[in-house]
Amino acid sequence: MKLTRALITAAGRDDHALPLQRLVDRDGRAKTALEIIVEEAVTAGAHEIAIVVRPGDEDAYRAAAGRSPSRLELIPQPEPKGYGHALKLGRTFIGDEPFLHLVGDHLYVSDLCTPDPAGGETSVSCRRCAQQLVAAAEAHDCAVSAVQSTREHMLPYFGAIGGRRVAGSRGLYEVEAVIEKPTPTQAEQELIVPGLRAGHYLCFFGMHVLTPGVLDLLDSLGPAGDRLLAPALAALAGRERYLAYEVQGRRYNLGVTYGLLIAQLALGLAGKDRAEILAQLVELLARGQGAS
Amino acid sequence: MKLTRALITAAGRDDHALPLQRLVDRDGRAKTALEIIVEEAVTAGAHEIAIVVRPGDEDAYRAAAGRSPSRLELIPQPEPKGYGHALKLGRTFIGDEPFLHLVGDHLYVSDLCTPDPAGGETSVSCRRCAQQLVAAAEAHDCAVSAVQSTREHMLPYFGAIGGRRVAGSRGLYEVEAVIEKPTPTQAEQELIVPGLRAGHYLCFFGMHVLTPGVLDLLDSLGPAGDRLLAPALAALAGRERYLAYEVQGRRYNLGVTYGLLIAQLALGLAGKDRAEILAQLVELLARGQGAS
Repeated sequence: MKLTRALITAAGRDDHALPLQRLVDRDGRAKTALEIIVEEAVTAGAHEIAIVVRPGDEDAYRAAAGRSPSRLELIPQPEPKGYGHALKLGRTFIGDEPFLHLVGDHLYVSDLCTPDPAGGETSVSCRRCAQQLVAAAEAHDCAVSAVQSTREHMLPYFGAIGGRRVAGSRGLYEVEAVIEKPTPTQAEQELIVPGLRAGHYLCFFGMHVLTPGVLDLLDSLGPAGDRLLAPALAALAGRERYLAYEVQGRRYNLGVTYGLLIAQLALGLAGKDRAEILAQLVELLARGQGAS
Repeated sequence: MKLTRALITAAGRDDHALPLQRLVDRDGRAKTALEIIVEEAVTAGAHEIAIVVRPGDEDAYRAAAGRSPSRLELIPQPEPKGYGHALKLGRTFIGDEPFLHLVGDHLYVSDLCTPDPAGGETSVSCRRCAQQLVAAAEAHDCAVSAVQSTREHMLPYFGAIGGRRVAGSRGLYEVEAVIEKPTPTQAEQELIVPGLRAGHYLCFFGMHVLTPGVLDLLDSLGPAGDRLLAPALAALAGRERYLAYEVQGRRYNLGVTYGLLIAQLALGLAGKDRAEILAQLVELLARGQGAS
């Protein structure tokens, strides 16, 4: 498998303006959230990108996406029929190829960074989250979802998988079950993964390498396949080899209160301007300006 | 003087998208930067608001301004002729009334806050920066610019005033000179204000109560009056009573690198969610994710 395409969904969320928000990336450059997400995909080899958007958002998104992809397609979703429906709109773009799927309201910050002597004293070189995921998918030639070990109390916010560790691989699992937002009881009965810390489950990271078969499965699920991705992934596990991979990094959901702030802080503290941001932070805190 | 109108300029800056960016205000609610600025004006009594924008930005700005003003006018500036020119476009809206002037790329965080028992345990009630300024202007019935004591090395970024303290008033000055971005030598010769700390000058805060006479002065300055406000304010000091007032608060320029981040942190740390933000900050720092 050699992956060249990415499908980003940005239509079905509550706040379609999130990908247009401005951030300073860890390289110190001002970008839109969408541009950072697009770069995540391009760095992983997905030079052709389609973004599913609300009708009318095409121009703003095209302007916000930056110039790194070799091909950029904006696909309007005529009605807000759901996440699965948005993915199915990418069928023509995807064709018969595997593809990287990212969501438009998350940012990903890799933990795999080293100082980059070529870039000067403060520069870092990172193996980004999508790069880690795509490398796993290409090595094993199958669909792979990025996951993160997550404490039980966060289960109401994510899809989660059950499965077993692939012998001899770090952080790689054969997926046997997928449940969207499982209850603690469901999770305990169906999603226990041997080897994880007690009370932890493997939850989705918002990043997948999928095969076109997933779109067929979404079709076969009828209206349920319009709404969610998880049921199609559950069916995929019974049909093809389907792995989960613990990416070394963190995801930041821009859609929660203070989501942009926390994502910007994470980028800044993981980037070249870490020292400057810490200095400004200390100054703000020292000022003692507060409600207390 | 009773002030009812505000004129916000948002056309002549490098980044006209800044006022459209999303922040969480100190009350915990998600707003655009423009909505926070508009609320600043409305809280100070300026229920009628005009915003000078780039042509084509009218709809986006109208949507982003929120619903607090009783009247909202969008005035397109056909060509980017400068800051003074943008102000002059407000003449019809202003009429013969004094007006509050704010810039569209700054946020203001007041230091005058007290816990508000009516709003619950974590609520605060603030005397906002524009309220402080407008109260001074109404009490003294003249134009007043908000200023902040600023260290000499920051002079290249601001307009600055010279003058003398009004006896018996806290933080109130008769303006005698105004210079845009003075050199240290100019400042030392013309802008010394008795009573300030050594090496400090009174720099503009990005917030003024102006009289319509300022627009006449901008006109009389020809092309120079298209570019800057400072020369007209310098002329004003020789013609009308014109005061400067040290507002108790901080201004945050959204237009600098990490400007949105620092403004959001300042709002958050001064607001009802201070404890939550500090907790998330400590978690981020503890994670040790960084370039180092």
